[in-house]
Formats: sequence, structure tokens, C-alpha cells
Amino acid sequence: MRKNRERRAALVDAAIEVLAREGARGLTFRAVDAQAEVPTGTASNYFSSRDDLLTQAGGRIYERLQPDEATMALTMEGPRDQDRTIQLLKAMVGRITAYSTGYLALLELRLEATRRPELRAVLTERIRADVDMNVKYHLESGLPGDATTVKLLYLALNWLIVERLTLPEVFSAEDAEELVVRAVERLIPG
Amino acid sequence: MRKNRERRAALVDAAIEVLAREGARGLTFRAVDAQAEVPTGTASNYFSSRDDLLTQAGGRIYERLQPDEATMALTMEGPRDQDRTIQLLKAMVGRITAYSTGYLALLELRLEATRRPELRAVLTERIRADVDMNVKYHLESGLPGDATTVKLLYLALNWLIVERLTLPEVFSAEDAEELVVRAVERLIPG
Repeated sequence: MRKNRERRAALVDAAIEVLAREGARGLTFRAVDAQAEVPTGTASNYFSSRDDLLTQAGGRIYERLQPDEATMALTMEGPRDQDRTIQLLKAMVGRITAYSTGYLALLELRLEATRRPELRAVLTERIRADVDMNVKYHLESGLPGDATTVKLLYLALNWLIVERLTLPEVFSAEDAEELVVRAVERLIPG
Repeated sequence: MRKNRERRAALVDAAIEVLAREGARGLTFRAVDAQAEVPTGTASNYFSSRDDLLTQAGGRIYERLQPDEATMALTMEGPRDQDRTIQLLKAMVGRITAYSTGYLALLELRLEATRRPELRAVLTERIRADVDMNVKYHLESGLPGDATTVKLLYLALNWLIVERLTLPEVFSAEDAEELVVRAVERLIPG
């Protein structure tokens, strides 16, 4: 059983690599087998369909994008002010940008969702829950700003990450840091 | 000559359809020929390489995303205040969202650019010019806000369009309108 769970996790991670590198259309059971260096036919024993594999890849990316417990605990430390908010958001943008494979794979999944209603339903639920959790966490943690602040930061920072990962010369790393600062300053109501 | 230009334009439009529907990996000369309903081998006579076709598709999408002259003239009418800014941005989001094929194809091109340095260079130049033009136009038109306002609106509204086009139930059409209003209210400095 444990070996099965590990094998399944390795196949899902391989699928994320394939998604980021080859795009959603390149994601076949055969490509996943090759990426995971397992015999051809293995992935098809672990997933009922390509949709199943796509959905599990989406779930896994979300798991890996979440901060670990130590990071979460750290976010509760320090003053609850604008500077601390900026510091935490810069760290978040840095963490997500560093996991570029996962973020690019998630974009591929979003595009694939326009063609696959089942995947769209799963991603919609996941992302709505993520937005709601971000709002709840921000408000409960005592950081400044309201629900609108969090939603607008979610929008602006997601596209900033898209820019940094797809066309990194449009906004330099310094431009990006500056935009995070300005976004927080303006989106937290006086 | 004129017939050649029309044929080329039709092939580029067909490529945009293929990009949005099949993803970047689905974009082959053969798929473009089929989409344009021309004999196999036609596209390869009009474009020197797949990169050439991808680049021209990107250019054409940008052309079509620009407002026409009548729309541009209209944006110069009316008061130069916050309400007018909101109205113009809502119209812009509506116009881009309505051209979903082009916007989704552009996202596919961005993802493809992570794999193709030549395409990345062309898109970087194009998008940087677009951001600069947005800033220049906004400031010269007398609408309220500064360069930072325009850049942060660019970020937030791009991701809002991604949400509406890929997972339209995360934010409803009304949520989206509300977010445009709040974004303008907060991003224009008091």
C-alpha cells in the first residue's frame, strides 16, 4: 500500500513536469511514464483517465503552493501593519515564482479547463476555496485591509507572477518588488 | 499581391483559432491548413517557420485587441474623472473578454515563450510597448491617477480577464464589475 502511494505521488509529480514543459496537449500516460522512468503502462494502472490525472496534478500543485507549517507560524509573528504585509507578500510572490514548474503547469490546467468541463468544475471549487481562505486568513491574522484588499492583491499579484515567469524582462525583479509595495500601500484603505 | 496578403491574413487568423482550441503544441502547419480550409502545404509556403507563424499570430492578436479609431475617439469624450475611468475600463475588460479566442491564444503564446527564446523576445518587446503606451495614453488623456495606477490596473485587470475566461464561476460577471470599480477607487491616489 505505502509503495503504491509513493508511486502514485511520483507519477503525479512527473505529470506536473510534463505539463509545464510540454503543455496540456503533451500530457499523455506514455509521457508521464517516461518522465517518471517507469515501464510504459504504469500510469494507466494508477489513474482511471487523463481527466483523473489532470485533476490530481491540480490538487498536488495547490498542496505544494501552500506554505509549510513553520512558514505559516512565522506569518503570525511581527507587527500587524503595512510593512509587515509587504514583507509577507514579497515572500509569497518569491515562493510561488520559485516553484515555476507548478505555477506554469497550473496555467496549462486553466487553459485545458476551457476544453474540459470536469476539470473546470474541480479547479473552480479549488480556487474559490483558496480565495476565500486567503480573505479569511488575512482578516483573522489582524493584517490591515479588508476583503476587497485581499481580492485585488490576489488579482494583481497573480498577473505579476505570470509576467515574471513567462516574460521576465517586461518587469524586472526590482520593478516587481516595487509594484508589490505600491499595491499594498494603495489597496489598504486609509 | 493583394490576394497573397489576404491569404496570409486568413492563415494567421486560422492559427489563432488553432492556438486557442488546441494549445500551442497543437499548432502545426497542417492544422492551420485544415482550419483555413486550404490545401495541405499552403501555410508552409507563407511562413518561413513555426516561430514565424507564432510571432505573426501574436502581432495580429495585439492588433485586434486595440480599440478601433471610433472607440479611441470616444474615450477622449466625457469628464476626466473617476467614474469615467471606471466606465472606460469596464468597456475595455468587456471588449477583451469578448475576444476570448485571441486572449486565450495569447496566454498559449506566453506559455510557449517559456520554451522559445525568439518568441519570448518578440512578445516582451510588444507587451512592454503596450504597457508604456497605456501609461502614456492614460496620463495624456487627463484621466486621474499616475503611472503606478495604470500598471497596477494592468496587472489586476489582466488576471480578472484570465479568471473570467478560464474559470468564469470563480468571480461572476457582477463580482468582476464590482472589482473593477474598487480597483479604480483604490488605485487612484487621493
